Amino acid sequence: MSWLFRGVSEIFPQQLASLDPGENLVQQLRQCDRPLRVKLGIDPTGADLHLGHSIPVRKLRAFQDAGHQAVLIIGDFTARIGDPTGKSEVRRQLSEDEVAENAQTYLDQVRSILDFETPGRLEIRYNSEWLSQMDLGKTLGLLSTMTVGQMLAKEGFAERYKKETPIFLHEFLYPLMQGYDSVAVAADVELGGTDQKFNIAVGRDLQRQFGQRPQFGVLLPILIGTDGVQKMSKSLGNYVGLAEHPSDQYQKLQKVPDHLLESYFELLTDLPLDALPTNPRDRQGLLAFAVVRQSHGEAAAQAAQVAAQSAGQAGSVPEFSLATVQFPAKLFYLLSASSLCKTSSEARRQLQAGAVKLEGQRLDHVDQIFQTPDDLYGKVLQLGKSKFTRFIP
Amino acid sequence: MSWLFRGVSEIFPQQLASLDPGENLVQQLRQCDRPLRVKLGIDPTGADLHLGHSIPVRKLRAFQDAGHQAVLIIGDFTARIGDPTGKSEVRRQLSEDEVAENAQTYLDQVRSILDFETPGRLEIRYNSEWLSQMDLGKTLGLLSTMTVGQMLAKEGFAERYKKETPIFLHEFLYPLMQGYDSVAVAADVELGGTDQKFNIAVGRDLQRQFGQRPQFGVLLPILIGTDGVQKMSKSLGNYVGLAEHPSDQYQKLQKVPDHLLESYFELLTDLPLDALPTNPRDRQGLLAFAVVRQSHGEAAAQAAQVAAQSAGQAGSVPEFSLATVQFPAKLFYLLSASSLCKTSSEARRQLQAGAVKLEGQRLDHVDQIFQTPDDLYGKVLQLGKSKFTRFIP
Repeated sequence: MSWLFRGVSEIFPQQLASLDPGENLVQQLRQCDRPLRVKLGIDPTGADLHLGHSIPVRKLRAFQDAGHQAVLIIGDFTARIGDPTGKSEVRRQLSEDEVAENAQTYLDQVRSILDFETPGRLEIRYNSEWLSQMDLGKTLGLLSTMTVGQMLAKEGFAERYKKETPIFLHEFLYPLMQGYDSVAVAADVELGGTDQKFNIAVGRDLQRQFGQRPQFGVLLPILIGTDGVQKMSKSLGNYVGLAEHPSDQYQKLQKVPDHLLESYFELLTDLPLDALPTNPRDRQGLLAFAVVRQSHGEAAAQAAQVAAQSAGQAGSVPEFSLATVQFPAKLFYLLSASSLCKTSSEARRQLQAGAVKLEGQRLDHVDQIFQTPDDLYGKVLQLGKSKFTRFIP
Repeated sequence: MSWLFRGVSEIFPQQLASLDPGENLVQQLRQCDRPLRVKLGIDPTGADLHLGHSIPVRKLRAFQDAGHQAVLIIGDFTARIGDPTGKSEVRRQLSEDEVAENAQTYLDQVRSILDFETPGRLEIRYNSEWLSQMDLGKTLGLLSTMTVGQMLAKEGFAERYKKETPIFLHEFLYPLMQGYDSVAVAADVELGGTDQKFNIAVGRDLQRQFGQRPQFGVLLPILIGTDGVQKMSKSLGNYVGLAEHPSDQYQKLQKVPDHLLESYFELLTDLPLDALPTNPRDRQGLLAFAVVRQSHGEAAAQAAQVAAQSAGQAGSVPEFSLATVQFPAKLFYLLSASSLCKTSSEARRQLQAGAVKLEGQRLDHVDQIFQTPDDLYGKVLQLGKSKFTRFIP
């Protein structure tokens, strides 16, 4: 069961000496005669996900592969309400369409990580299903399970209360709503970053109140960004996007500082940690290749690797603007227009010889046609081993 | 408009210099072209009300008499839920029947105070009407109007937080629910004890949020009990019940300490304060008579007065147990059995002479019959000016 512990910050409760499966997740996994329900909550904010976000999703996949059921909860209820004070940028009020679109954006980005295919391995739920049904009596019941002191002990609230930064009363409801999600889906396990420990513990308390067996919490670390200092974040510019172009992912990852490499391998790949290359540059290259392969597949990873090696020798990949090209456009024309080949006839010859690749995929049809420039933007066209160009608008 | 200010602790906002009727209730009362809606909230706990409870009800009557509309709000919603923690005796969960019965008990007790007859002067509402419709989104909206700091500044919460006595989160909702009642009935004025200032102010804030003109708060003092020290309370034994027997009310009130008399006159009667008797015993007697007359009518007040005077001369009113009397029983038999008359024939003669009263009402029918002892328990039978007996089981 090493898959369970890999890269995990904390599992709670985890009385490893205990044979009681309510106190020991390993026992639970061994003894339970049904798949466990493993919850991960998502805010449908429409954000570009980065590798930091992928960590709990990857753990969720590990549970799927062990035969358990992922339960993705899309927090549409709070998104539909927004922040009633109107003060929070993060909690902007969203329309039903925006929520649906953002949820789709999320799912598209994690499609390469989760198992969407195997029957019974993935359940997707919207929490408005139960939260929109919650009347004032039930809400009073939820609130009555906690004291002001307990809530103010939560990280974040404690500091704000001390600094006398206003805490609005409705903010106390969010942990309880997230906790109630666990009741509603009867979660056995909840995954989250280490910053989610309080909320997951609230879920345990509520499940106990509602007569359910309390879930286990599996906490994953917050990923340090490629700067090696701060946590990965789009706004800090130290991130690698899940949907980013393979070459960009590759180039960022092959520069990850040495002291982060082991945690990156542990958290972002399935490679055995005791068989990594000794040379730091080789380790960086292996990390970059492994991550890009996971996101975009083998061919894209190879192309990105080749492009990066070429760039390493001769600066960055040259770019070719498609602005002046008439579409539909023939491939052999693009080879000469972009100066990869000196003439159209050389282009035809190289194509026939199988020396041309687009994003690592060999193209050998001389008369191949591209209908619109959208099919090409951002992609790398390669001739032989050392000539590249990337199409830009 | 002296009726408005009599016995009032505070009116807010009250910028007496302001001609803006939104800041000055007197201006509002003069200028408004419709009756104002004057709210008083009631907990349907089924409690015996005492004179302390009657103070805001009497002020409500004063508004009725000035042409305004009393809006009694029966807090059935919270009573139906009870205290979710199960820790509060005061907030025991009640059934629908219990709530209805308790509301009726309340109304029976205030029937002698309020104007139930004049059309348009009394509106009775149950707050489950709107609170049972409140979903989580609206509840988040209510909560978002206040901060933790504001709530913890409320008297009661502040001390408990300091002493680290647990404050459960749902307790923060009660002031907001009471405040929302003001929104639901579009109250112009809310009456309450001085301990209600915070809650009435929350109502003002919420009305502003919902685009209504904020209500005025009219705060009435908390009545000191007949011991002259602590606030009037049934459990402290220093109370005069609204539904108590006239003689008991009378006897308690004629012993009210001198230093309380003026406030009792001001808060519990309509008598002009500048024409009170100078002799303290006369003042006590007048207070007792005036209050009993308000509760039970002129005749009962006279009977109680006579009984009290007699008791003052010869100890307490003698009691006669009906345990040995066979029912139906004839009146003339009771007169002799209870030793008020020496013989049945004297009893007949006194009846014919009109010298017999029951609870201050003359009885002159020689053959009057009482069907059951329940018609007599607790009542005082009087012969002439100086002979009394009270029937007991």
